[in-house]
Amino acid sequence: MLVIGELINGMYKDVRKAIGDKNKSVIQSLAKNQIASGADALDINVGPSSTKPIEAIKWLITSVQEVTDAPLCIDSTNFEVIEAGLNLCKKKAIINSTNADDEKLERYLGLAKKFDAKLIALTMDKDGIPRDRAKRTELALKIVSAAMEKDFQIENLFIDPVVLPCNVAQAQAVELLESIREFKLLSDPSPNTIVGLSNISQGATERNLINRIFLVMAINCGLSAAIMDPLDKDLMDAMITTELLLNKNIYCDSYLTAYRKR
Amino acid sequence: MLVIGELINGMYKDVRKAIGDKNKSVIQSLAKNQIASGADALDINVGPSSTKPIEAIKWLITSVQEVTDAPLCIDSTNFEVIEAGLNLCKKKAIINSTNADDEKLERYLGLAKKFDAKLIALTMDKDGIPRDRAKRTELALKIVSAAMEKDFQIENLFIDPVVLPCNVAQAQAVELLESIREFKLLSDPSPNTIVGLSNISQGATERNLINRIFLVMAINCGLSAAIMDPLDKDLMDAMITTELLLNKNIYCDSYLTAYRKR
Repeated sequence: MLVIGELINGMYKDVRKAIGDKNKSVIQSLAKNQIASGADALDINVGPSSTKPIEAIKWLITSVQEVTDAPLCIDSTNFEVIEAGLNLCKKKAIINSTNADDEKLERYLGLAKKFDAKLIALTMDKDGIPRDRAKRTELALKIVSAAMEKDFQIENLFIDPVVLPCNVAQAQAVELLESIREFKLLSDPSPNTIVGLSNISQGATERNLINRIFLVMAINCGLSAAIMDPLDKDLMDAMITTELLLNKNIYCDSYLTAYRKR
Repeated sequence: MLVIGELINGMYKDVRKAIGDKNKSVIQSLAKNQIASGADALDINVGPSSTKPIEAIKWLITSVQEVTDAPLCIDSTNFEVIEAGLNLCKKKAIINSTNADDEKLERYLGLAKKFDAKLIALTMDKDGIPRDRAKRTELALKIVSAAMEKDFQIENLFIDPVVLPCNVAQAQAVELLESIREFKLLSDPSPNTIVGLSNISQGATERNLINRIFLVMAINCGLSAAIMDPLDKDLMDAMITTELLLNKNIYCDSYLTAYRKR
């Protein structure tokens, strides 16, 4: 499974402060620690309160790429911020994200093709976030069809069913899990699936436990990627063990260590 | 989910010794601790080395029933031991187990009907344990059909796909999980499904972690019951959280405590 480290995000105070102070070492430590803990890629988000988001994303990407070659996931609601970020990425990047609205899909598929980037697409549109799996799957099919029409490689597409917090939308977790299962059936090859994991436990008390259990179930349903905290060792152990039991890694007594030494 | 505590089993040294010494307090503590930790029922097994198994099962059942009203799961490969046990059970018992051989199925379904007991049936026969989900499901269908012919309530039937250790049969875990999903489709109402959980980690180093992750995935596939260690708090937390995310318990910040206070 593709683990995208979530910690370089301006919604976190340490990152927000580091961006303000142009304190590279904070960002570079976060990058190195996440990679050392098993992240395959790093999410880069300047945060909602950034006043100069284009300048900030450029600084973040430059700082991170000084210490790692890992692929970056450029995370913004602002098209120009994403475009500025993609211009700097040395490795094949991931765009985070489009939704299923026609105009936006068209624009972001074009951007992803231009930069040979992967694309995350949320199963939501101008009507908001669906509350059942049928609508989620309908939007996922719309996304897959648009990608095919644009001749965009399905292997580069990541569909995100949009995770809602279990403490306010408890019935949604089952819908999310089953929609991940359904998305796999939409095309051959299947589109990838991705979740922003920590949303499931937003506002809950037992956050780490809830994240962990939801991740195990989602992988069991076929999840291909998650934006998550790789420094949460119990979470990573749960992920590694899930993949072991699904026969994706070879068993040995020290399989946790072996995975981390890849 | 039905949690059947696994600890009163003569294969464990403390239990074997307690049976030999007729030391009630050891057995009664195990019974009380398992119930207090969330077990809904208790497995009772005299162990493979018992020389007077009928006497031993009677003594175990009598001892346990002095301290709890919880249902008992009479676990033996010996028909006479099970029958002797059932004669003493005050609550609706669970018979552990028959397999899918015609003669054995007929005999055990008769026994279960006679005692109004639930019945665990393993998807194995004289050819041994199947290595793929198709054969497991074929045997499960045979079991369900036999139960229907005998007019045995499907709600009282627990089908066990026979868990194999992941360190020697790694590819089996996926087959087990998918077979649990398939068993649910065999009849309406669905038969219950059950696993002997700790078999999955037999001989492995990270036993508790592997048990926990397999349980989460199995519940996600529709598992109804497990014979497991309720004193493993992390395992119970994982189970409670899985059921929470599957919307089987109502969310509150202290949902772990709330579940335990049921």
